[in-house]
Amino acid sequence: MHVNLENAEQVIEAARKKAVELDTQMCIAVVDSGANLKAFMRMDDAWVGSIDIAIKKATTACFFGMATGALGQLSQPGKPLYGIEHSNDGLITFPGGLPIVDEDGVLVGAIGVSGSTVDNDHEVAAAGVAVLGVSELPAHPWRT
Amino acid sequence: MHVNLENAEQVIEAARKKAVELDTQMCIAVVDSGANLKAFMRMDDAWVGSIDIAIKKATTACFFGMATGALGQLSQPGKPLYGIEHSNDGLITFPGGLPIVDEDGVLVGAIGVSGSTVDNDHEVAAAGVAVLGVSELPAHPWRT
Amino acid sequence: MHVNLENAEQVIEAARKKAVELDTQMCIAVVDSGANLKAFMRMDDAWVGSIDIAIKKATTACFFGMATGALGQLSQPGKPLYGIEHSNDGLITFPGGLPIVDEDGVLVGAIGVSGSTVDNDHEVAAAGVAVLGVSELPAHPWRT
Amino acid sequence: MHVNLENAEQVIEAARKKAVELDTQMCIAVVDSGANLKAFMRMDDAWVGSIDIAIKKATTACFFGMATGALGQLSQPGKPLYGIEHSNDGLITFPGGLPIVDEDGVLVGAIGVSGSTVDNDHEVAAAGVAVLGVSELPAHPWRT
Repeated sequence: MHVNLENAEQVIEAARKKAVELDTQMCIAVVDSGANLKAFMRMDDAWVGSIDIAIKKATTACFFGMATGALGQLSQPGKPLYGIEHSNDGLITFPGGLPIVDEDGVLVGAIGVSGSTVDNDHEVAAAGVAVLGVSELPAHPWRT
Repeated sequence: MHVNLENAEQVIEAARKKAVELDTQMCIAVVDSGANLKAFMRMDDAWVGSIDIAIKKATTACFFGMATGALGQLSQPGKPLYGIEHSNDGLITFPGGLPIVDEDGVLVGAIGVSGSTVDNDHEVAAAGVAVLGVSELPAHPWRT
Repeated sequence: MHVNLENAEQVIEAARKKAVELDTQMCIAVVDSGANLKAFMRMDDAWVGSIDIAIKKATTACFFGMATGALGQLSQPGKPLYGIEHSNDGLITFPGGLPIVDEDGVLVGAIGVSGSTVDNDHEVAAAGVAVLGVSELPAHPWRT
Repeated sequence: MHVNLENAEQVIEAARKKAVELDTQMCIAVVDSGANLKAFMRMDDAWVGSIDIAIKKATTACFFGMATGALGQLSQPGKPLYGIEHSNDGLITFPGGLPIVDEDGVLVGAIGVSGSTVDNDHEVAAAGVAVLGVSELPAHPWRT
């Protein structure tokens, strides 16, 4: 499971701080390495529709150990993973979801952010990840 | 919750009048600011498949505080929100859904219309909104 | 499809009048003979959770051509239809849903009401049905 | 929408404190008055299966403006609301979900707690509610 509650709260707090800096209103979700929700917050005035998107960005990033935006490049029409969004009760494959990888290169969870442009969403997610580690996994095998 | 039943009935009545003017058969849905259904009607000979589309257009417009067609321009292949329709148990991102914003700039609900061309759907939705307010939200923060 | 919009609005109006008489706040749904939503209204201060229940009562009554409460007697533990609620994306099998049967004994639609005690729900539904016909189907075959 | 993020965090913090006191590991969810998720946390070692239960307890309490346990007494076999759990994409009707009602008697949101005995779940939920108000709604009409 890896990400504990203290970790998750640090991630969310860092992400929120960045969201405020950018003058945005975000939904922020953190899942553990099993892709199960650990913590979530919806800032005031954030879109209601972003609740589910933030959570799905986090689960998507965890499911495949990669940034949601990277997956989205593979799921465009004509690309190898076209339509992958139909799996797993719905994926979100545009930026804003990032894996959280610890110093040993182990995937310990993921963060998903939704509420502004995808660039802002990504930047807020990255600020959250930076508290605990990085978003890039080493070459396989990488999962415990 | 915002939109009360009297409001919702006025919105639907104005939308229906426009639908008749355009010689169309529409499904018309109104949701409150929590995206929960307040009132719905299916005109005779409207497509059965439009029931769910009208309701999803209304919830989509409410979830993101914007016209469904505006969201759809961002969700095309190669665009930033490609695949967003997979969230929230299904979004509809072509025209026909509009937020309802009151004179104080507060999102009080949304309307969704389906049953004809998307231009007609949009026109009927706009006629409904006009009874209560406008569809454009002011800059953030805009939600209670 | 049978129930036209004029019919459905008469049914809902009669049901609403009864709901007011009983000092209750109801969700009222009417479906056609294909169990597809024709009209819906949520009275102010009605439970949000009653939206789905009212619609499911209407579809349940239509699916089986009988009062939801009658079906519920058969779906209790140890009874022949125990667990039938798991079908059709969820049935509601307590009172408040009634078929609408015309003077020729044909099922033309159904009404579902939720928002108060099941006795009140049933009474409001019955007031709606009375505008168009009865709730009892003749012996099979009864469907067009 | 009513419950803002500051409110929700106070509710969760009070609930967590009570959970620690009781030596339990809980999932705690807060929804706004539209039954949309506002904040969530899963304590370390809480059951993964409690994530969804905590959220559904919160939405259930909000949908009907009553304690989930009160609804559960009405949904037992042979009781008036038997099978109501099949509505609204799944309700949870045992204790641990409570409405949050402000000093004006308005439903402003709800809390759901899962992770221990239902008595403990309820006690933790009640500790959360106490920060903002009460769980008992006045007689109708009670919703904005």
